[in-house]
Amino acid sequence: MADPRIARIAEIEVDPDQLDTYKALLAEVGAASVVREPGVLMLHSSSLKDVPHHIRVFEVYADKAAYEAHIHTPHFLKYKSSTAGMVTALRLIDVDPILLAAQ
Amino acid sequence: MADPRIARIAEIEVDPDQLDTYKALLAEVGAASVVREPGVLMLHSSSLKDVPHHIRVFEVYADKAAYEAHIHTPHFLKYKSSTAGMVTALRLIDVDPILLAAQ
Repeated sequence: MADPRIARIAEIEVDPDQLDTYKALLAEVGAASVVREPGVLMLHSSSLKDVPHHIRVFEVYADKAAYEAHIHTPHFLKYKSSTAGMVTALRLIDVDPILLAAQ
Repeated sequence: MADPRIARIAEIEVDPDQLDTYKALLAEVGAASVVREPGVLMLHSSSLKDVPHHIRVFEVYADKAAYEAHIHTPHFLKYKSSTAGMVTALRLIDVDPILLAAQ
């Protein structure tokens, strides 16, 4: 049976002068999404140690409907509009899970 | 307080002719690690949809000791030796977690 989950990696570059604000907004939308949306299975965001304004987010949604619902939520729309002037590059990489394993 | 967790992203390129075998071995070591090692918090592996022999693994360990213990386990050493002839490139990117959020 096909895996219905939608997974991807977002590679984001942020204006270094606005990095702290950006990280707070990213953490806020991550927490709100996982708490309020059962179909948002994972939103793991991190910053490259050597290039801290380069961000990676590993995103997993239960299925396409969960993803579509997510991008229309008030918390996601707030994140998008409030960070629009901070994000200098965005690359979305669709992936197929091999194994998602966590404690 | 400093976050003791060790997080990184492995970017791996695999010989396309050995991809299925590689993925099975990667899934095996991921499952064994999370089951047998409480300090291996996450091992999320996926394959790029557009370039399936390009693999990403998002790895999180409880602390440096958990990471050091992991790379000396029999299941990790088996993975490393059995995949040595399959991996054509390996880039390890150290990251700082911003927010790790999951259901």
